[in-house]
Amino acid sequence: MLRHLPAMSDLAIADLHDPALSQRLQQCTDQKTKPPGSLGRLEALAIQLGQILGSDRPRLTAPQMIVCAADHGITAQGVSAFPADVTWQMVQNFLAGGAAVSVLARQHGVALTVADCGVRHDFAEGAPGLLRLKIAPGTADSSLGPAMTADQCAQALANGRALVQSLPGNVLMLGEMGIGNTSAAALLLARLTGRESGAALATCVGRGTGLDDAGLARKCTVLARALAANAEAQTPLAALAALGGFEIATLTGAVLQAAHERRVVLVDGFITTAAVMVACALAPHARQRCIFAHRSGELGHALMLEHLHAQPLLDLGLRLGEGSGAMLAWPLLVSACAILNDMASFESAGVSDRTDRPSPA
Amino acid sequence: MLRHLPAMSDLAIADLHDPALSQRLQQCTDQKTKPPGSLGRLEALAIQLGQILGSDRPRLTAPQMIVCAADHGITAQGVSAFPADVTWQMVQNFLAGGAAVSVLARQHGVALTVADCGVRHDFAEGAPGLLRLKIAPGTADSSLGPAMTADQCAQALANGRALVQSLPGNVLMLGEMGIGNTSAAALLLARLTGRESGAALATCVGRGTGLDDAGLARKCTVLARALAANAEAQTPLAALAALGGFEIATLTGAVLQAAHERRVVLVDGFITTAAVMVACALAPHARQRCIFAHRSGELGHALMLEHLHAQPLLDLGLRLGEGSGAMLAWPLLVSACAILNDMASFESAGVSDRTDRPSPA
Repeated sequence: MLRHLPAMSDLAIADLHDPALSQRLQQCTDQKTKPPGSLGRLEALAIQLGQILGSDRPRLTAPQMIVCAADHGITAQGVSAFPADVTWQMVQNFLAGGAAVSVLARQHGVALTVADCGVRHDFAEGAPGLLRLKIAPGTADSSLGPAMTADQCAQALANGRALVQSLPGNVLMLGEMGIGNTSAAALLLARLTGRESGAALATCVGRGTGLDDAGLARKCTVLARALAANAEAQTPLAALAALGGFEIATLTGAVLQAAHERRVVLVDGFITTAAVMVACALAPHARQRCIFAHRSGELGHALMLEHLHAQPLLDLGLRLGEGSGAMLAWPLLVSACAILNDMASFESAGVSDRTDRPSPA
Repeated sequence: MLRHLPAMSDLAIADLHDPALSQRLQQCTDQKTKPPGSLGRLEALAIQLGQILGSDRPRLTAPQMIVCAADHGITAQGVSAFPADVTWQMVQNFLAGGAAVSVLARQHGVALTVADCGVRHDFAEGAPGLLRLKIAPGTADSSLGPAMTADQCAQALANGRALVQSLPGNVLMLGEMGIGNTSAAALLLARLTGRESGAALATCVGRGTGLDDAGLARKCTVLARALAANAEAQTPLAALAALGGFEIATLTGAVLQAAHERRVVLVDGFITTAAVMVACALAPHARQRCIFAHRSGELGHALMLEHLHAQPLLDLGLRLGEGSGAMLAWPLLVSACAILNDMASFESAGVSDRTDRPSPA
C-alpha cells in the first residue's frame, strides 16, 4: 500500500492565516461606496482571493481550465446510462470546441487544456490540444479489486503536479470527463466520510448522467461490492488508488501543486470535489485556496461540501461536470477583484457615510 | 385618481406562448452533447431567452443598464441609515465610474445610462452621461399624503417608455439609486399583496442600507402611517403614484416599453422588482420577459419573488441595488445563449447517446 508520495516531500502547503492582511482587506471592502456588507458573499469572496494571492489588490492572471479525462473499469458492471466510448468521443468534442466547457471557456477567454489521463482509446498522434498523461487505457474494475496500483496512482499525482507547473497564471479551474467517474467519486466520498453501509452509502450515490431507479439500485449494489473488495484501503492515498480514477488522481496532484504555488483553485462539481477531498485530507491547508463554484444536482455533492465546510457560489442544478460550473462561476471571481481594485471609497468619491457614524470628511 | 395611462393605449404586450417554438427550443437543448437536463436552470434560461426573442438561436445584442435615481420625501421621517444627500453623491459616483454598478458594467462591456428621475440636487448643466428625466426634486412625503400627483406619475411612466425607445439592443437591465427607496418599494409590496397590518407589514420591511433594530421599528411605524395616509390608492397605478417614487415609476414605464418591444428584462433586487410588480399588475404578460437576477438580502424581496412566481439565478446575499445583482447575473444569460448557439449536438460531434435509446447514427 502506498503510504507516502515519493515526489511530495517538497510540497509545502502553508497556512495562509494572516490577520493583518485580513484586516486590511476588510477595511478596504468596508470603505467602498456601499453600505457595509451589502455585496454579500461577493465581499467574502474578494477577501478570500486577497488572502490566497497575498495582496489587498489581488489580480487574477491567465486562468487555466484543465479537463482531465479517463476511463473506469467499473463501467463493466453497468453503472452508467451512457456507454464508455463517450469518454473518448467527448475528448474529441472538447478539442473541436463543441462541448459545454469549450463554449464557456471561449465566452470568458479562459485557456482550456484537455489531458488524456487514462482514456481507453488511441487518439491520433499529435491531436492538437491534447496533453498525453495516460497511465493506462482505463482503470481496473474496483468492484473486483484496486482500480489503480500504488505506482499508477503516484504517477497520476505527479502528472497533475507537472501539469500545473507547466501552466502560467494564478488561477486553476478544475474539469473532468470520464464515463463511470460518479461511481469513483461516490466511493471516495463513502470511504473518506465513513458512509459505507446501505442507507448511508445510498446518500453518496447519485444518478450520474441519468440512471433510472433500477440503474441507481444496481449502482449502489456494485459500489457496495467495490468498498468490500477494497476494505483495506483506509488512508486517503490508499483510497484514492483503490477506488478513484486516473483523472481524479491527476486532479488531486494538480490541486496540491496549485495550493503549494498559492494559486486560486476553482472547484467544479461532484468529481473534482472528490479530488479536493483527497487533497485536503493529505494537506489540510489546501482547503484555504479552494473556491467552490456550485452545488451540483448530483446526489452526494452536498455531503462533500458539508464535509469541506464549503458554501458554493451557484446553485443552478448543474450536473454535467467537464468544469462547466466552474466556468459559469468564474466571472464572479473577476467581479470580486474588480470591487476591491476599481470601486471608489466614500472618501475618494466624496460620498457621505452613515448618519450614525462620523463622516470621513 | 389616475385610472388610465394617457400614453399607454398603444402599449400592446402580447402573450409569448408559442408551443411550436418551445418544442424546438427543448429539442435543440436536448440534442446538445450532454445528458438531458444536466445544465440545470441554464437550460430553462436558454429556453426562456429563445421564447422572449422569438428564435431557437437567440442572440443578445447591445445590453443596456439603466440606473434611475430619485429622492424620497419620506426620508424626512428618518427611515434610512444614510443621509438623503447620498443619492446625488452616488449619481456623481456612477458618472465617474467608481460605483459597484459602474465597475461591473465595465467588466462586462454593458452600456450604462444614469437618469436623474427626480434627485434633490442641481447637477451641473451638461454633466456628461446624465440623462435628465427629472420630474421634481424628490417626491412628497408619503407618510403625509401621496408621494406623487397622478400627472407626475404619468410623466415618469412616459419618461421610462421614451428612455427605452431611445436605447438600442434587445436586453434591458434595471438599476436604481435613491435614499429612502426601500421604504417606497416596501409600501408597494404591502399594498399590492395586502400585507398592511402590523405583523404582515413587518414581513415587507427590511433594514435597507443598514438600520439597527430601533431604526427598523421606526421605519415600520412610518410606513404604517403612509399606508393609512394613502388608503384610497388601491389600484396598481394609484398605489404607484401614492407610495412609489420617481425612479420606480420611470422603471415601471421602462419595463412596460421593453416588454412591448419584446426585449429581455433583467431585474435586479428589491426596488426594481417593485417596479416589475406594478408593471405586471398593469400588463400581466410583461412577466414573461422578466429574468430575475438574484434573491436580495433585503427582507421582503422573497415575498415579491413569490408573488411573481420567480426563481432568481443568484442567491449571494446582495442588498446594494444600483443594478449590481443584474450585472453579476448577466454572464449567465450570455452562457445560456452560447449553449444553444455554439454547442455541438450528439449527431454533429459523433458522440454516442444513452445506451437505452437508439443512437442518432
